Amino acid sequence: LNPISDGQRSRKESRKRSGVTLPSGFTAAGVHCGIKKKKLDLAVLYSKDPCVAAGVFTENKFKAAPVLVTSKRVDEGQLRAVVVNSGNANALTGDSGLDDASEMATETAACLGLSAAEVAVASTGVIGVPMPMERIKKGIKEACSLLSSLGGGSAARAIMTTDTVPKETSVSFSVSAGTALSSGAASEKVDVTIGGMAKGSGMIRPNLATLLCFLTTDAAITKEALDKALKNSVEHSFNMIAVDNDMSTNDMVLVLANGTAGNAVIQYPSADYNEFEKRLKDVCIHLAKWVVRDGEGATKFIEINVRGARTFQDAKTTALSVACSSLVKTAMFGGDPNWGRILAAVGYSNAFVDPHQVDLWIGPVQVVRDGTAAEYSETSAKKTLSGRDISVFIDLKLGEADATVWTCDLSYDYVKVNGSYRS
Amino acid sequence: LNPISDGQRSRKESRKRSGVTLPSGFTAAGVHCGIKKKKLDLAVLYSKDPCVAAGVFTENKFKAAPVLVTSKRVDEGQLRAVVVNSGNANALTGDSGLDDASEMATETAACLGLSAAEVAVASTGVIGVPMPMERIKKGIKEACSLLSSLGGGSAARAIMTTDTVPKETSVSFSVSAGTALSSGAASEKVDVTIGGMAKGSGMIRPNLATLLCFLTTDAAITKEALDKALKNSVEHSFNMIAVDNDMSTNDMVLVLANGTAGNAVIQYPSADYNEFEKRLKDVCIHLAKWVVRDGEGATKFIEINVRGARTFQDAKTTALSVACSSLVKTAMFGGDPNWGRILAAVGYSNAFVDPHQVDLWIGPVQVVRDGTAAEYSETSAKKTLSGRDISVFIDLKLGEADATVWTCDLSYDYVKVNGSYRS
Repeated sequence: LNPISDGQRSRKESRKRSGVTLPSGFTAAGVHCGIKKKKLDLAVLYSKDPCVAAGVFTENKFKAAPVLVTSKRVDEGQLRAVVVNSGNANALTGDSGLDDASEMATETAACLGLSAAEVAVASTGVIGVPMPMERIKKGIKEACSLLSSLGGGSAARAIMTTDTVPKETSVSFSVSAGTALSSGAASEKVDVTIGGMAKGSGMIRPNLATLLCFLTTDAAITKEALDKALKNSVEHSFNMIAVDNDMSTNDMVLVLANGTAGNAVIQYPSADYNEFEKRLKDVCIHLAKWVVRDGEGATKFIEINVRGARTFQDAKTTALSVACSSLVKTAMFGGDPNWGRILAAVGYSNAFVDPHQVDLWIGPVQVVRDGTAAEYSETSAKKTLSGRDISVFIDLKLGEADATVWTCDLSYDYVKVNGSYRS
Repeated sequence: LNPISDGQRSRKESRKRSGVTLPSGFTAAGVHCGIKKKKLDLAVLYSKDPCVAAGVFTENKFKAAPVLVTSKRVDEGQLRAVVVNSGNANALTGDSGLDDASEMATETAACLGLSAAEVAVASTGVIGVPMPMERIKKGIKEACSLLSSLGGGSAARAIMTTDTVPKETSVSFSVSAGTALSSGAASEKVDVTIGGMAKGSGMIRPNLATLLCFLTTDAAITKEALDKALKNSVEHSFNMIAVDNDMSTNDMVLVLANGTAGNAVIQYPSADYNEFEKRLKDVCIHLAKWVVRDGEGATKFIEINVRGARTFQDAKTTALSVACSSLVKTAMFGGDPNWGRILAAVGYSNAFVDPHQVDLWIGPVQVVRDGTAAEYSETSAKKTLSGRDISVFIDLKLGEADATVWTCDLSYDYVKVNGSYRS
């Protein structure tokens, strides 16, 4: 998944158009408004045209105010803007927090000439602290005024918390052209683009959209098809990663489709839908893996692939059980090919497994055959753990289903980052 | 729960009689046989009389060989001895591992003049490595020959892995005397004793007997009553602790009752049964809390009490969700009263909670009222986290059920201990 080539665009134009601002018709700006000491902390994303929208939100019962506000708006109508801040989660802030989230949307709408119902709100950062609304309102004004001069890159930086790098990506592909643009031939194609940005990097738990991620596309697509494509994409990307097994109050994955690419409206089911879902999933997987790679304190990126399960659910449950094990993660940090801990985690997952059948590889080295130690060289096994990227392959030998999840190791720095996050 | 006073026993006698060897008729010895480099690594526990036995075992599907052997024996008949080694778990060792576990029992039986079916086997340590049977057999012979000169203390040391201290305890109380001893009055009482030893201290996960624990009693009790008392005791002790959320392949809690105290056989239901269960539960809770206090890398001991839940299951689920949160545990390590992380963990548990009702105290400081920040002094809240013992109190205000769990913080040393456990 490579950034789209700059083609004939100027360097400045190229900076402006990256990630969420690469699809046509989207602009964005990230600014510093003073929630954080120095770093960018507020972003506005804007579409000149109304957008079909879909979202996946945290299942935590303590939903942050912006999650409550935005999930309602995504259900009810079209969106044209998103306002996001980092540094303060606006979570567990009661009625005044809800008022603050609404006011962020109202202020953004006023600056952009929209109705408040067209603006989604998201927040990330410390829980339980009132929002500094004066600074935020000033920041919203500034960001709205800079939409044409800044771009996706600044927005991606403004949503970071403990992330060490901004995360944005994009992809372009062809779908059927719309009648207005097509010359009449049914096979006429037109390019559409999907862009995205995400932030991690702690409180990353499977079975949820476990972070903030904003996706944009210039494709025309029905609400039903967009909902379905997002749900399926999240299931195979953000629901397949684990950093620390904690589930945030603020998680949100949002996609906005403004339909400016001139394609025939994508319906479900159709070949165009399949292509769109595949590409959206690619974007989500790319961002999800990046979140893990940049997980708090991570020194290693671990891909866990389970095959031979009786069902996809069994494969996923098994892989996530291994991915979430603190003992597996500390062993990886220590470069110890401690396969006993991996099998122990397989054994306490709820999946159906036969202890006498399981095979296990760490990198290219088969360490377990039929549930007990294979003959292997400890030196080779250790060597596979010396690099930054590690693959674990588990074959349950019971069926045809498989699943892949991504996790990172558990290091001193995870403890350090989270032992002193607020101070 | 204080050790029983030594009374008129000599100091040497007192050393011999502690923990599992305090109830009458039990002897034990712990020796060094060479599984570990220097430390004690093998223990034998022996009862001169046949014992009614009950056990709770790991639910991990990859059950270690000794778990498979012992759970079958506990189901089938009476026991007279237990042989335990540390340093090697005899887990994921296939058929030869099963042979080795059986041979440990056979060897112990031969030394003590028992049948192999009367001997339970337990192991703890590294997974997936063949047992050094020659050393172990030599150790069994030595331990059996030292039963009358060593005692519970040496056995408690011999079952340690990453534990920093041996853990043993005991309690005495009165129940109805048996007819042979009683003078005829129905109210005649006789003392019975329960002793125990346990080892932690990683792979400690709730909803399981998550460690090795051996309990002895000289009480006479039916198998049915002993099963029930152990199950209920484990439910409120070893199932209520969390160190790292990993579930071992070797967990086992075993209780042996030899009936030598001369009490009337305890039946279920009865007042004596209630007293016995209460005392057994006390012993289990004492050992369980000790396991947490000595958890890998632990610098703080945290008691989490949830009240006002609709059901006990809801209270327990909520408390364990908080206890297992890496973010809560690192915040505790850092002395940060980050109540947002605590409520986030309450919110992602499966329990029924109303976000607008929850109250939360850290120590004596109420930090949350009705789901949002209470007015409190950050300095006072921080101060409550400066000591080694921390209490967290959560009131869901929805019902009458409550539960208490115990956990420890997540420190650099947890990562250190587990990043290099095998090397």
